Amino acid sequence: MNTEEAIKKLNDLELKEFAYGHAMGILSYDDETVAPRGSRIPRGKTMGVLSELSYKLSTGDEARAVLDGLKEHYDELSPEDKRRADIREKNMRELRAIPVEEYVAYTELLNDASNVWREAKAKSDYKLFEPYLGKIIETQKRFAGLVAPDMDPYDYCLDRFEEGLTQDKCQEFFGALRGRIVPLLERIEASGPIEDGFLKTHFPVSAQRELAKKLMEIEGLPEENCILGEVEHPFTTAFSKHDVRITTHYYENNFLSSMYSVIHEGGHALYDMHSEDRFVFTSLEGGVSMGAHESQSRFYENIIGRSYEFVSFIYPEIIRLCPKLASRSARELWRAANVARPSLIRTEADELTYPLHIMVRYEMEKAMMKGEVDTSELPDMWNRLYKEYLGIDVPDDKNGILQDSHWSGGAVGYFPSYALGSAYGAQLLAKMREEVNVAETVKKGELKPVNDWLEEHIWRYGCLYKPAELMERAFGGPFDPKYYTDYLERKFTEVYGL
Amino acid sequence: MNTEEAIKKLNDLELKEFAYGHAMGILSYDDETVAPRGSRIPRGKTMGVLSELSYKLSTGDEARAVLDGLKEHYDELSPEDKRRADIREKNMRELRAIPVEEYVAYTELLNDASNVWREAKAKSDYKLFEPYLGKIIETQKRFAGLVAPDMDPYDYCLDRFEEGLTQDKCQEFFGALRGRIVPLLERIEASGPIEDGFLKTHFPVSAQRELAKKLMEIEGLPEENCILGEVEHPFTTAFSKHDVRITTHYYENNFLSSMYSVIHEGGHALYDMHSEDRFVFTSLEGGVSMGAHESQSRFYENIIGRSYEFVSFIYPEIIRLCPKLASRSARELWRAANVARPSLIRTEADELTYPLHIMVRYEMEKAMMKGEVDTSELPDMWNRLYKEYLGIDVPDDKNGILQDSHWSGGAVGYFPSYALGSAYGAQLLAKMREEVNVAETVKKGELKPVNDWLEEHIWRYGCLYKPAELMERAFGGPFDPKYYTDYLERKFTEVYGL
Repeated sequence: MNTEEAIKKLNDLELKEFAYGHAMGILSYDDETVAPRGSRIPRGKTMGVLSELSYKLSTGDEARAVLDGLKEHYDELSPEDKRRADIREKNMRELRAIPVEEYVAYTELLNDASNVWREAKAKSDYKLFEPYLGKIIETQKRFAGLVAPDMDPYDYCLDRFEEGLTQDKCQEFFGALRGRIVPLLERIEASGPIEDGFLKTHFPVSAQRELAKKLMEIEGLPEENCILGEVEHPFTTAFSKHDVRITTHYYENNFLSSMYSVIHEGGHALYDMHSEDRFVFTSLEGGVSMGAHESQSRFYENIIGRSYEFVSFIYPEIIRLCPKLASRSARELWRAANVARPSLIRTEADELTYPLHIMVRYEMEKAMMKGEVDTSELPDMWNRLYKEYLGIDVPDDKNGILQDSHWSGGAVGYFPSYALGSAYGAQLLAKMREEVNVAETVKKGELKPVNDWLEEHIWRYGCLYKPAELMERAFGGPFDPKYYTDYLERKFTEVYGL
Repeated sequence: MNTEEAIKKLNDLELKEFAYGHAMGILSYDDETVAPRGSRIPRGKTMGVLSELSYKLSTGDEARAVLDGLKEHYDELSPEDKRRADIREKNMRELRAIPVEEYVAYTELLNDASNVWREAKAKSDYKLFEPYLGKIIETQKRFAGLVAPDMDPYDYCLDRFEEGLTQDKCQEFFGALRGRIVPLLERIEASGPIEDGFLKTHFPVSAQRELAKKLMEIEGLPEENCILGEVEHPFTTAFSKHDVRITTHYYENNFLSSMYSVIHEGGHALYDMHSEDRFVFTSLEGGVSMGAHESQSRFYENIIGRSYEFVSFIYPEIIRLCPKLASRSARELWRAANVARPSLIRTEADELTYPLHIMVRYEMEKAMMKGEVDTSELPDMWNRLYKEYLGIDVPDDKNGILQDSHWSGGAVGYFPSYALGSAYGAQLLAKMREEVNVAETVKKGELKPVNDWLEEHIWRYGCLYKPAELMERAFGGPFDPKYYTDYLERKFTEVYGL
C-alpha cells in the first residue's frame, strides 16, 4: 500500500466509522428526546448489533492494514494525517484489548442502566440503581486493566475524557482552587446576602422559548444547522458540523435555568460547528476533549453570559417577555444571576461553588475506582462530602447521588473536565482581551469578534492537537489555574462589593 | 449445516437486518420530525453506508448459505420457518436479479425525483416532473423484467405491495365497486346537501393535542409503546412492536383532519404492536402487506371512527375542548363527518368517493406500465378520468396529477391496496359482528372487544400468512367485495336519509 492508497482507505474507513457513530448517536438522541419507554427493547438490540459492527470495523483486518500502511509511510504524512494515524493507533490499542463480547455486553448494560437510573431518580431510590452502578464500576476497572495495565485505573478514566489528565494534576489543580474559593466564599457569607427571590417570577414557557430563540441568534447558531430540543437533562450532540442538536429544560419559576442552559449548550455547539471543512467525516472533526469542550460551553455561559455587559444587553428582551421583572434593574438582575451560595444540585450551582460540586464527584470516583468504598455506602459518602465541602445537608437521593446521568452512561472520569474547562476559559479570556475589546462588544450583543477569535484559536483545529497543546497554543504559554482564581476573585468581589 | 444451525443463523441474520432497518428508519423519522435542514449532508452519507451494508448482508455469502441450509432441510421446518425461508428466497431473488449499480442508480433517481416532485408540486408544473416519472416507469419495467420475466410488469408491481394481487382481481373488484358507488352517489347528489360549514370552527391546536391524547387512550395505544409526532404529511413507522410512532398535522380550522388522522394511524400502530412475541426481530414481525395494513387503519378511521356510535361517544369531549361546537348535536356532527361529495384531493376524500380516486390512479398506472400512454399525455388522462369517475374538473397539476408523493418515491402499484384494505375492513366487520356487539361497545367508548377480536384474527399473525390467506382465515371464507358495497350503501342511505 502506498501513501495515497493508505490515505484513501483511511478516508473510507473513517467515513464508515462516522456513519455507524451517527446512526448510534441518532438512536440515543431519539431516546433522550422523544422515544417511548418501550423503545429500549429494540434500541438495545440495534445498539448491540451496531456497536459490534463498529468494533469489528475499527479493529478488524482492514483497519489494521490501513494502520500498517500509515505507519510504513509515517514520515511522508502531513501533520494532519500523522495525528489521524496516532489517534487510530491509540484507539485500536484500546479496542483490541477488550474482547468483543464484553464490549457488546457493556453497551447493553449502559442501555439498561440509563433506564433504571431514570426510574430510580424519579422514585428517589438509590437501591434500584446500585447494582447497575456496581457493574459499571467493575467494568471500568476491568477495561482499564485490559487496556492500560501499567496505569492507575482512575488515571485511565481521566485520560479518556482529557488526554494527559492525571490524579496528580487534579490534586494540584483542585488544591489551588479550594485554597482560593473557600476563603472567598467565607468573605461572601460574612457580607450581606443579595436579593434574588424575584428570579422565581413566573415566566411562561412560551416566552422562554422565544428568549431561547433570541439567545441562539445572538450566540451565532443558525437554524439550518442547529436545533433546540427539550429534555430533562440538557446536553449537546453533534452529527458533523452540519447538524448539531442542543437541548434545554424550561422551569416556569426559574427562567435563568433554561437561559444559561441554552447559552452553555450553544458554546458546545459553536465548537462542534466550526471544524475546518477538510476535517468533516474524519477523526479530526469536532471537539478534542471534554475539557476543551467545557472550556467553550462554560466560557459562553459564565464568562460571557453572566457578565454585567451581557446581562444588561439582554435585559430589555427579558423585560419585554416578562414585564413583571421590570421592577428590577439590569444591575440587580446581574447580581442575582451571580449569587454564590452552597446548594444541592450541580447543574444549578453558581460559578463560584460549582468546582466544589466537581470535587465531591472526583473524590467519589477516586474511591470507587480504588475499591475503597462499597456501592451500598456511596449515598452516605456523597452526603458526608456535601456537608464537608459545601456545608449542606442532602435530603434524599434524588437531590443527592442520583442527580447526574453521567455514571449511568459509563462516564466515569468526566466530571473533572468541567472544572478544568472553566479554568481554560478564564485563561482564554485573558489572552483574547489582548486583541478583542470583549466588554465593549458583548455590551452591544455583538459576539462575532469573540466567536471569530475562538474559531481562529480553538474551533477550527478540531482534534488536530492534543487538548493541552491546543490550549497552550491559544494561551501562548503554559496552563495556569491562577487566571481562573483571579477571575473568580475579581468577579465576586465586584458582585458582592467586597 | 443442520436444521438447528440453519435456524440459529437465520435468527442472527434477521436480527442484523432488523437493526440496519431500525437505524435507517430512525434517521428517516428524525428527518421527517425534527432534524435541521443541514442534516441532509451527514444523513446522505450515513444512509449510503448503511444501505450498502444492508444490501450486502441480505444478498451476500452468509445469507446465501443460510438459505441453502433452510432449503436443504425444508421439510423439517415448522410452518413459521418455512414461511421465513419463502420470504427470504423471494427477496433474495429480487435483490440478486437487479445489478447493484442499477439498484444504486435507482436509489439516486428516487432521491432526485422526490425533490423535483416537491418543487413541481409547489409550482404546479408537471413538465418539471415528467422526465423523472418517465425514468421511474422505465426502471420499474426493467426491474420487473429482470426479477419476474414471466409475469406481466404491472402485476409484478401490484404483487410487491399485496402478494397475490393481479390486474384481473383489480378489474373485478373495481368493477363491482363502481357498479354500486356511482348510482349511490347519484341518489346522494339528488338529495339535499348536509350542512358541514361548522366543521371549520376554530379549534385551538393545544385543545386538538388533548383530543388526540384522549383518542389514543380510547383506541388502546399505550404511551409506553406509541408516541404521536407532528409532521406535514402524517404517517406511521414501527421499530418492532415495542416502539411505534404515529404522526399527525393540526389545522385550527379543520379539527376532523387531525382527529381522523390520529385514529387512522392508530389503526396501523395497533397492527404493528401486536405480532406474537416469538416473531419480534424476525421477518415475520409486523403487518404482512399494505392492503392488510390499510384494512386496519381504514377500519378504525371509517368503520369505527365515523360511525354514529363513536361520534356520539366522543362528542362530549369535543364540546368540552371546543365549546363553540355545542350549538350542533352529535347527530349533526356525525352527518357532517360523513358528507359524500366528489372532490379533487384523494387524502381529503370522503369514505364513499375515495375508491373512485384510487381507480383513477389504477387506470393511470396500468396504462403507464403497458406503455399505452406517453408521459406528456398523463395530465390530460388524469383530468379526463377525474371528469369521468368523479364528474369534476381539475384546475391544475398541483390539485391533479402532482398531488400524491407515491410515484416520485417509486411506489407504483401501491394505490389499489387502499381500496382493497377498505373492503377487507368491511368484511372483517361482518364477521366480527357474529361474536362482538360492535355498536354497543363502541357507543360506550370501549374498544377492547374490537381490538381483542382483531388481535386474535389478524394482528398476532404478523407476516405468517400471505395477505389473501390471512383474510380468508379471518373471514371464514373467500373475499367478497359485496360486504364493502353493502356497508357503504347501508351507511350512506342512513347518513343522507335516502
